[in-house]
Amino acid sequence: MTRYVHLFSDPPTTQVKELLGGKGAGLAEMTRLGIPVPPGLTITTEACRAVYANGGAWPETLRAEVLAALAVVEEGVGAKFGDTTQPLLVSVRSGARVSMPGMMDTILNVGLNDATVEALAARTNDRRFAFDAYRRFVMMYGGVVLDVDRHLFEALLNDLKRSLGNPIMHDHEVPVASLEQLVKSLKALVLKETGKPFPEDPHDQLWGAVAAVFESWNSKRALTYRRMYNYSDDWGTAVSVQSMVFGNMGDDCGTGVAFTRNPSTGERMLYGEYLLNAQGEDVVAGIRTPKAIAAVSSPRGREAESLERALPEVYAQFVAVAARLEKHFRDVQDIEFTIQRNKLWLLQTRNGKRTGRAAVRIAVEMVDEGLITTDEAVLRVDPTLAEQLLHPRVPEPERLAKEGIFPLASGLPASPGAATGIIVFDADDAERTAKDGTKVVLVRGETSPEDIHGMKAAQGILTAMGGMTSHAAVVARGMGKCCVAGVSDMHVDVRAGKLVVRAHGGTAERTFVRGDVLTLDGTHGKIYSGEVPVEPATSVPGFDRLMSWVDGARRMRVRANADTPKGARDARAFGAEGIGLCRTEHMFFAADRLSAVRCVVLAGTPEVRKQWLAKIEPMQRQDFVEIFRAMAGLPVTIRLLDWPLHEFMPREPAEMAQIAAALGESVDVITRRAEQLHEINPMLGHRGARLGLTHPDIYGTQARAILEAACIVSAEGVDVQPEIMIPVVALAGELTRIQATVRAAAEAVFAECKLRVPYLFGTMIELPRACVVAGEIAETAEFFSFGTNDLTQTTLGVSRDDAGHFLPDYLGEGLRVLERDPFASIDRDGVGAMVRMACERGRSTRADIKLGICGEHGGDPYSIAFFEEVGLAYISCSPFRVPVARLAAAQATLRQKKS
Amino acid sequence: MTRYVHLFSDPPTTQVKELLGGKGAGLAEMTRLGIPVPPGLTITTEACRAVYANGGAWPETLRAEVLAALAVVEEGVGAKFGDTTQPLLVSVRSGARVSMPGMMDTILNVGLNDATVEALAARTNDRRFAFDAYRRFVMMYGGVVLDVDRHLFEALLNDLKRSLGNPIMHDHEVPVASLEQLVKSLKALVLKETGKPFPEDPHDQLWGAVAAVFESWNSKRALTYRRMYNYSDDWGTAVSVQSMVFGNMGDDCGTGVAFTRNPSTGERMLYGEYLLNAQGEDVVAGIRTPKAIAAVSSPRGREAESLERALPEVYAQFVAVAARLEKHFRDVQDIEFTIQRNKLWLLQTRNGKRTGRAAVRIAVEMVDEGLITTDEAVLRVDPTLAEQLLHPRVPEPERLAKEGIFPLASGLPASPGAATGIIVFDADDAERTAKDGTKVVLVRGETSPEDIHGMKAAQGILTAMGGMTSHAAVVARGMGKCCVAGVSDMHVDVRAGKLVVRAHGGTAERTFVRGDVLTLDGTHGKIYSGEVPVEPATSVPGFDRLMSWVDGARRMRVRANADTPKGARDARAFGAEGIGLCRTEHMFFAADRLSAVRCVVLAGTPEVRKQWLAKIEPMQRQDFVEIFRAMAGLPVTIRLLDWPLHEFMPREPAEMAQIAAALGESVDVITRRAEQLHEINPMLGHRGARLGLTHPDIYGTQARAILEAACIVSAEGVDVQPEIMIPVVALAGELTRIQATVRAAAEAVFAECKLRVPYLFGTMIELPRACVVAGEIAETAEFFSFGTNDLTQTTLGVSRDDAGHFLPDYLGEGLRVLERDPFASIDRDGVGAMVRMACERGRSTRADIKLGICGEHGGDPYSIAFFEEVGLAYISCSPFRVPVARLAAAQATLRQKKS
Repeated sequence: MTRYVHLFSDPPTTQVKELLGGKGAGLAEMTRLGIPVPPGLTITTEACRAVYANGGAWPETLRAEVLAALAVVEEGVGAKFGDTTQPLLVSVRSGARVSMPGMMDTILNVGLNDATVEALAARTNDRRFAFDAYRRFVMMYGGVVLDVDRHLFEALLNDLKRSLGNPIMHDHEVPVASLEQLVKSLKALVLKETGKPFPEDPHDQLWGAVAAVFESWNSKRALTYRRMYNYSDDWGTAVSVQSMVFGNMGDDCGTGVAFTRNPSTGERMLYGEYLLNAQGEDVVAGIRTPKAIAAVSSPRGREAESLERALPEVYAQFVAVAARLEKHFRDVQDIEFTIQRNKLWLLQTRNGKRTGRAAVRIAVEMVDEGLITTDEAVLRVDPTLAEQLLHPRVPEPERLAKEGIFPLASGLPASPGAATGIIVFDADDAERTAKDGTKVVLVRGETSPEDIHGMKAAQGILTAMGGMTSHAAVVARGMGKCCVAGVSDMHVDVRAGKLVVRAHGGTAERTFVRGDVLTLDGTHGKIYSGEVPVEPATSVPGFDRLMSWVDGARRMRVRANADTPKGARDARAFGAEGIGLCRTEHMFFAADRLSAVRCVVLAGTPEVRKQWLAKIEPMQRQDFVEIFRAMAGLPVTIRLLDWPLHEFMPREPAEMAQIAAALGESVDVITRRAEQLHEINPMLGHRGARLGLTHPDIYGTQARAILEAACIVSAEGVDVQPEIMIPVVALAGELTRIQATVRAAAEAVFAECKLRVPYLFGTMIELPRACVVAGEIAETAEFFSFGTNDLTQTTLGVSRDDAGHFLPDYLGEGLRVLERDPFASIDRDGVGAMVRMACERGRSTRADIKLGICGEHGGDPYSIAFFEEVGLAYISCSPFRVPVARLAAAQATLRQKKS
Repeated sequence: MTRYVHLFSDPPTTQVKELLGGKGAGLAEMTRLGIPVPPGLTITTEACRAVYANGGAWPETLRAEVLAALAVVEEGVGAKFGDTTQPLLVSVRSGARVSMPGMMDTILNVGLNDATVEALAARTNDRRFAFDAYRRFVMMYGGVVLDVDRHLFEALLNDLKRSLGNPIMHDHEVPVASLEQLVKSLKALVLKETGKPFPEDPHDQLWGAVAAVFESWNSKRALTYRRMYNYSDDWGTAVSVQSMVFGNMGDDCGTGVAFTRNPSTGERMLYGEYLLNAQGEDVVAGIRTPKAIAAVSSPRGREAESLERALPEVYAQFVAVAARLEKHFRDVQDIEFTIQRNKLWLLQTRNGKRTGRAAVRIAVEMVDEGLITTDEAVLRVDPTLAEQLLHPRVPEPERLAKEGIFPLASGLPASPGAATGIIVFDADDAERTAKDGTKVVLVRGETSPEDIHGMKAAQGILTAMGGMTSHAAVVARGMGKCCVAGVSDMHVDVRAGKLVVRAHGGTAERTFVRGDVLTLDGTHGKIYSGEVPVEPATSVPGFDRLMSWVDGARRMRVRANADTPKGARDARAFGAEGIGLCRTEHMFFAADRLSAVRCVVLAGTPEVRKQWLAKIEPMQRQDFVEIFRAMAGLPVTIRLLDWPLHEFMPREPAEMAQIAAALGESVDVITRRAEQLHEINPMLGHRGARLGLTHPDIYGTQARAILEAACIVSAEGVDVQPEIMIPVVALAGELTRIQATVRAAAEAVFAECKLRVPYLFGTMIELPRACVVAGEIAETAEFFSFGTNDLTQTTLGVSRDDAGHFLPDYLGEGLRVLERDPFASIDRDGVGAMVRMACERGRSTRADIKLGICGEHGGDPYSIAFFEEVGLAYISCSPFRVPVARLAAAQATLRQKKS
C-alpha cells in the first residue's frame, strides 16, 4: 500500500525531494541534523497526484495516515490539535520538488476557533496576540480556502482602524476588544459571502486547508510559473503540516529570511532581513520594510535595528546554523526562520535563487573553498542567467552625474541590469503592449504572483514597496530581469494610472502617466526619466575561470553565426571556435551593393547578369579575405545565396527607375520582371539550391570569390578552413549538380593561383525530405549543418512570420497544445526526430560526416542538450550567445556522462 | 565472358526482350516460328550499356563477335558483306526493350559503295534501282552518322529534279544517269561539310552505323520520350543488323505496316497500309499517301489499289502470318513487312499501341476469344488511356450539320477526342504558350520526333500530311491526345506562320494565323473554325465488363473527392465507393453564403461570430443531408474548415462596405481587421486545426451540422456513415482538444435527436510532423487520410503556387533533378517514405486504423501502385478520375500479387 504521509523525523529513504517537495525535504533533513524545526508531517506529492487522477477524491487511507502522524506531533509538542486547554496550532504549506516562490498558498494558525483561541490566550497570557492570530487565520483561510474576496476582509480591518481614529495604525496597535469584534465581523462576512458558517471544527479546517493546497497546484499563477520554467504539471505538490511557532508574540519574537551569500553579487556574507514581532508572510509580502540581519548590512546609524544587535544570542545561533546548512547542502541556502520568545526555529531551507553574476562568483568560490568540484561549478550556473552578464548596463551614477544626468529617485538594486521602456501599471497591459515589440517597464506598488505574466513581458520592474527578498525582487532575479524595488519616494496609483515621484532631496513632485519613458538601473537601484544611454557589461569576477572549466568539460565545439568581418571578430572575442553560418545574402544589405544585386536579379539575360555578378565578386572576395583573416585557424562555413528573390526588390518608384537605368531597360519592363518574382509562399519558393540551379552563374561566382579569398589569405601563411554550404536542398541530385559547379570553380581558381586550399563541400539540412534522404545526400555532402529554423517551419507546417496568429494561444494556458515555442527550443518529438534520423542516415553513408547546427536553436540550452544527445560536432549561434552556448554545451556533456 | 551478339536464330535463353530489345526479340521469335525473316544478328543492350559505361569505348570482343555472326548470315543468304560480285547489304536498326516509335535512327543499305553498287546493279539487272538505293544510303548515312544537315542533301535532290524540268517528279522517275551524278554530288557535299571523304569501306560504314545507333539512345528526342513515359535511361538500346530485302525493286515489290486489330477502335480486322515499289521508311514518314492493305478498308472505287487486289497471294500469306503472330503473342501485333519480287518478308512484330477505347475492346474480346484471362485483360488497359474514354468529344458531324456547323476540312481520324485551342506552328511556341494555361493546337506539315514537347503541351495535333501510322498519329494515340492527320486540302507554311485551308468542295481559301482558334475532332477527322461545343463521352464497348473484372480484382476501395450534393451524385455514377474528401470550405463559394462566412471571419467578438455561424449552420446541414442521401450505405469523409482565412476576404470596396454594414461596424475597422489576416506564407499559416482551436465555435458548429444531418437522414432509414476529419494537424494535442469539441457537439445532437449515429473521428496527415508522431496521433484518430498535396509541399519545402519558377527546369532535360512532377506523381523516396512511416506508426498504436489518401495523387496510377504497396484501405480522387483509379488500383493489386 502506498504510504502518503511522513513525519519530518521519518522521511522516505529514496526520492525524498520528489515525494516531500523541496520544503518538506529540507525540513526533514534539518530535523535529521538536529537543527531546531517545529515538528510536523508532510503529505507526499503522490497524494496530490492521486487526488488529481481520481478527479478530486482523496485516497482512502490519507486521513487516517495524517491523524496517526499528527498524534506523534502532538505528543512531541505536548499539545493536542483541537484541544481547548493545550491546543496545537499548525501551518499548512505547499511544497513542490522545485521551489516556486510565492506560487502556492500557505495557511497559518490552523486549529483556532472560539474555544481554542481562549486556550491560546490563556497559555500565552497574551489575549491580544491570540485574537490577532485568530483574525489573521480567519482572513487567510476565508480568502484562500473559502474563496472570499480578500479585499472585503481588508476593508473590514480598515473600517475598524478608521473607527479607532487611526487608519494607518499597525496591526499590533489594535486593541484586543476590537480584534474580538473583528473576528465576529469577519465570520459574518464569510457566512454572507459563502452561505455557510466559518468552520469551527479544527479538523474541518485542516482538511479544507490541505485541499486548498492541492487545488492551488493548478491555479493560474502556478501554471504560468511552470510554463515559464517548463516544469511538469505532473509533479504535484506536497503539503507540510507543521506545528506553529510565533514571531509575533512580542519584541523577543521575530521572523526573517536570509541567504547564506548575497544572491545579487555572490559575495560570501550572510544576507537577510527580518522583522521583530511579526508573523510569517510579513517579510516577503513587502508590507513592512524589513531590517538587516547583520549590523554591517544595516544603513549607517541604524545598526541597532539589526538582529545582530537586537537579539545577539539568537543571531549567533542563526549564523552557526546557516553556515552548517550551507556546508551540508553544498550550496547557497535560502532560509526562513522564526524567533519565538528568544528561541530560534527554522521553518525552511532551500537552495537559493541567484543572479547570473552571483551564480558565477559563488560557483567559483565554492570550488576554491573545496565545497564543490569544477564540474559541479559548471553545472551550477543557469546558462540563461549567464546571458544577463553580457547585457549592457546603465553607467555608474557618478559617471552619469558628470554628464548632468541625475536619477529621478533611488530604491533597492533588487535585480541587476538595465531597462528602458514606457511605463504601464498592470500586468495585462504590459503583456498586451509588449506583444508588438514595444518595450515596457512594469510599475507597481508591490508585485504579486498574479503579475508574473506582466513581469515576463516587461523589460524591467519597478515597485514602490518591498525589499530585496520581496516577490518582485526574487522573481525578477530568477527571470534575469532588471528590478528596482522599495522606492520610498514614489507613489503608485494604479487605478488613476499615475506614478508620482518626489524628486531627490526636495518636495517637488513629478507625475508620470502610462506611456512615459523611464530607465531603470537595477544594478544600482536608480530610476531615470527618459532614455539613458547604456554601456556594455563589465567583467564578472570568476567568469573567465568558470569558462575555462566549461571549455574543458564540453564535447561540442561552439561557433558563431557571423556575416561580416566585424561580426567574425566579435564572435572570436566571445570565444567562438569558428563561423557556423556566414549568410552571404546579408553581405549585400549595404546600399551600394544592393543596387548591384538588384541588377543581378532583374537582368534580362544571362550575359547581363554575368556583368553585374562580375561587379559583386570583388566585394564578396574582399569580405571573405577579412573574415578568413579574423578566423585564422578556425573553420568558416559560408552559405551560398539563399534569398527569396523578391526580398531584394526595390519598392520605391525612384529605386525602380535607378535599376532600370542601370540595366538600360524601361521602368515598365523592370517593374513587370520584379512582379513576376512575387511569390505566394516565399518560404517555400525559389530559394537556395533552386536558385543556384536555375542561375548557376550566381553560385559559380560566389564559389570563385570564396576560394580566391582563401588562396589570398592562405598565401599570407594563414590557416584557412573554408566550408561551402548549399541551402534549401531537398534532393540529392540538386547537390551533385551544384557540386559540379563549385568544384569546377575551385579547380579554376586553384589553377590560376597555383595553390590548393583544402575546403569542404556540404549542405544545410533544413527540409524534411533532406532528412529522409540524408543517406543519399551524404554521398555528396562532406558536412551537414541543420537549419532548424526552416526545418521547424516545414516539419510543423508553421510559418514563423505568421505564427503570431495562433502560436501564443498554443502556448497559453487556455489551449496549451505546445509546451515550448518550437522556434525558441527545438521540438524534440517532431523536428528533433527528423534531426536524429538525418544524423543516423548521414553517418551510415559517411561515417565521419561533420554534423552541426546553425539555426537559432544553437544558442538555446534546452536545444543544446538535445544536440549533445544526437552527437553533433558543433553548435553555432549569434556571437552574443556564444558564452551561453559554451556553458550549456558543457552542462549537456556533463549530464550526458552522468546518465 | 559476356556475350554481346546473338543471331536471330540463336537468341539468349532468358531476358530476351531486355537483351535484344523489342525489335530483336520479335525477329528472333519470328525466326523460331519459321516465319520468313531476312537473316541477321542483334547486338545486345548490354553492349550499349558497356559503351556508355566505358565513356564510348567498345567492349574488346564486340567487333569479333559481330564479324563471326555476320559470317553465318552471309552463308545463309549466299552473299558476302563488301563483296564486289555477290554483295550483302544490311540494315542497321535500333531497338529498346519498349517500342519508342520514331525515336531511334535506322540506316538502310549499309555496304553500298562504288564497287558493290555495280554488283547490285548487275545482279538485280536494275541499275536505276541500285543507284537509287545508293543515293538513299548516302543521304541517310550522311545525315544520321556523319551529322550533315539533311536539308543540304534534299536541296541537291531538288536541284537535280528542277534541272530535269520537273521539281515534283517521283524519286523513281529520276533517270539513272542523274542518280549516278547525284551520288557524286552527295559525296562531294559530305567531304566539304565534314572534311573527310564518305566511307567507302563497308565495315567502316557498319561500325559507324552501329555507333550512331548507340549514340541515338541519348539524343534529345529519345530522352524526351523516355522522360514522358518514365522509362529508364539505363536500359540502353540493342542494334539489329539484318540482311536487306527491297520493296523498291519494281511493282511486284512493296512495303507496309499493319495492326492485327484497329488500334483506334479495337475492331478485329487487319488494319494497315502499304506502298508498292517503296522502301522502308516511305510509309511511316508520311511522304507518300499509303494505300489500304484490305480491299474493304479502301476508299470506295479504289479497292484495286489494295494489297488484297494488287498482290492477292502475298496478301493471303500475310493475313495468315498476322493471325498466327497475334495468337502467338496473345496481343495485337504491329507488323512491318517488305515484299521483294512477290516474296513476303517480315521485318518487325511488336505489341501494338492503341487508344484507350481500342484497348478496352481488344482486352474484353480477347477474353471472349479465350486468348487471355480477365486478370490479363485488366492489366492490358493503360489507365491513363482509359481516362480519354471519359473525355468530352465533338458531336457527330451529321448532328453539327443540322445546327449549321460544318467542318472546315477533313483528314484522318488519327487519334480520337476533341481539342479546341489557338493554333501555333512550332513546338517551342506550343510549350511556351501552354505554360500559362492557354490551350493550343499544334499545326504542322508533318510532325517529327523533335516536336514531342510541343505535342505534349498541345490540346491536339493537326498535320497536313501523314497517314494513320504516321509519327503524329502514333505519338498522339500514345499520349491520349486528339489528332487529325493527312488533311490534303490544307497547306501549312510554318515560316510565314500561316495555315491555308481550301474549303470543302470549293476553291475558296481561308487563311488562319497564329492565335486563331480551331477545334479538332480526332474521332471523325474533322477540323472546325473557332470553338465547337463538345458533348460528354459515349459509352465504350466492353467497358462495363472490363470494369466488373477490375472491381473484382482490386483490394483498395476507390472514393471520390466531392463537395456538393451534385458532386456526390456524379461521383457515385463514376463508381465511387464513398466520399474521401468533402471540403466544407468549398461549400461556401456560393455568393449568398460567402457574405455570411466573411461576417464569421471578420466578427469583432465571439458572440457576433456565433450569430453568423448560426446562419451558416442550416445551409451546411442541408448540404450534408443531401450528400448523405446520395451516398446511402457509403462512407462520407467530411473535412472541417481549412481555409487560409484571407482567401475569403472581400477585395472590392463595395464588398467591404457590405460586410461592414452587416456587422454594424465601420469600413475602416473591418478593413483593418481584414488586413490583419494577411499572411506572408499562407500555406504555413493560420489554417485547419489551428483555426479550429483558436475559434472552437466554428468546428463545433460544423460538427453539429454534420451530425444533425446524419440524424435526419438516418431517421429516414438510410445508412449514414459520417467520418469527421480534422485538417493540418501537427500535434497530437491539437487533435485531442478538437475531439473534445466534436464529441461534445455529437453527444448534444444525439440527445436532442434521441438517436445515435455511429461516426468516425480522424485526421488528415499532411504535415511531416504528423507522420513522425503518427503513433501518438492514432491514439485519438480513428482514421488517417493522407493529404499528399500539402505533405508534398512541406516535405519538399516547395510551394505549389510558386513552383513554376523552377520546377519546369527541374523536370527538364537541362537539370533533370526530378524524374516526375511530385505534385502529379508521389515522390516515393521523400513523401512516400513519410507516408510509409505514418502508416507503420499509426498501425502500431491502432492496429485497425483506417488509412486512405485524398490528395490529388489518389487519381494517379503511378502513385496508386505505391498506395497499394503501403496497404492503404482506400484512395480518393476527383469523380472524373474514379474509373482510372479503379483500374489502376486493380492493376496494382494484380502486380503486387505477382511480385
